[in-house]
Amino acid sequence: MKKRDAFQVRPIGIIHSPFTEAVGTPIQSAFAEDAEGWVEVFDEYVEGLKDLAGFDRIWLLYWFDRNTNTRLRVRPFLEEFEHGVFAVRAPCRPNPIGMSPVRLIEVKGNVLKIGGVDILDGTPLLDIKPYAPRFDHFQVQRSGWLDRAGQDRTQADDRFSADA
Amino acid sequence: MKKRDAFQVRPIGIIHSPFTEAVGTPIQSAFAEDAEGWVEVFDEYVEGLKDLAGFDRIWLLYWFDRNTNTRLRVRPFLEEFEHGVFAVRAPCRPNPIGMSPVRLIEVKGNVLKIGGVDILDGTPLLDIKPYAPRFDHFQVQRSGWLDRAGQDRTQADDRFSADA
Repeated sequence: MKKRDAFQVRPIGIIHSPFTEAVGTPIQSAFAEDAEGWVEVFDEYVEGLKDLAGFDRIWLLYWFDRNTNTRLRVRPFLEEFEHGVFAVRAPCRPNPIGMSPVRLIEVKGNVLKIGGVDILDGTPLLDIKPYAPRFDHFQVQRSGWLDRAGQDRTQADDRFSADA
Repeated sequence: MKKRDAFQVRPIGIIHSPFTEAVGTPIQSAFAEDAEGWVEVFDEYVEGLKDLAGFDRIWLLYWFDRNTNTRLRVRPFLEEFEHGVFAVRAPCRPNPIGMSPVRLIEVKGNVLKIGGVDILDGTPLLDIKPYAPRFDHFQVQRSGWLDRAGQDRTQADDRFSADA
């Protein structure tokens, strides 16, 4: 394998949400507790859902399919200064993979009912992982520019849309 | 776009670590605080690192390139029962994307010195995102099978290796 070889990812399902365009979509699960949606997992992957229902929260990894721009410098939703794309969670990434820690409300067959959804309707799902404080909670002293940024804006505008 | 279209991901760098085989590699960052390594970011993406140094911890998303098996039912490292692959963090996933919240020690040009490394040496890097309690900390009541699983095992064995 050469170190720059590309890899293929294939959707394992589709994420459904009330959000059909970027404008107004919550920018993080933490700002979207009331937003509910559902995940359709394709039939051939349903066996992999065994015991997922025991988790209150799950990570969804997905493809930012509405994002067609890659930018290395980004002005994020939460403030007006420009940062490197790897220092923000914006969709315009070299590999446009998003991750959201959503609330798992119910598992029924191949459908997951979820809350805290900050994802556009129709987004291709790539992976599901259990959320666990044992793995995911770390105390940090410094969260970079986020330490000074306000929380005034909790919803997206059109800055990362294809035509913006 | 059809809903099952595949997407291409391309490495943006390479993760270097002391771990050259699965056996003995920490199974989570949380069990690997002393393990240090470094990330080589390819030159064309260095601009995207601006302001990353302000974060104590970062998410690395990467490709489990040593994993050649996809399994939908998995016996994880932490216990002897079998679970769906989406309820565990094992590498043998339909889309073998790993994510680790590693400690960011230093940024120098295109090199990130990191700690808490639970990743094999030479692993292709797909993305870097800032770790932020505001986005990533959620209180949960239930962490599924992990609530009863011990922490006896903190290092991997060869169960997910290509020849296992």
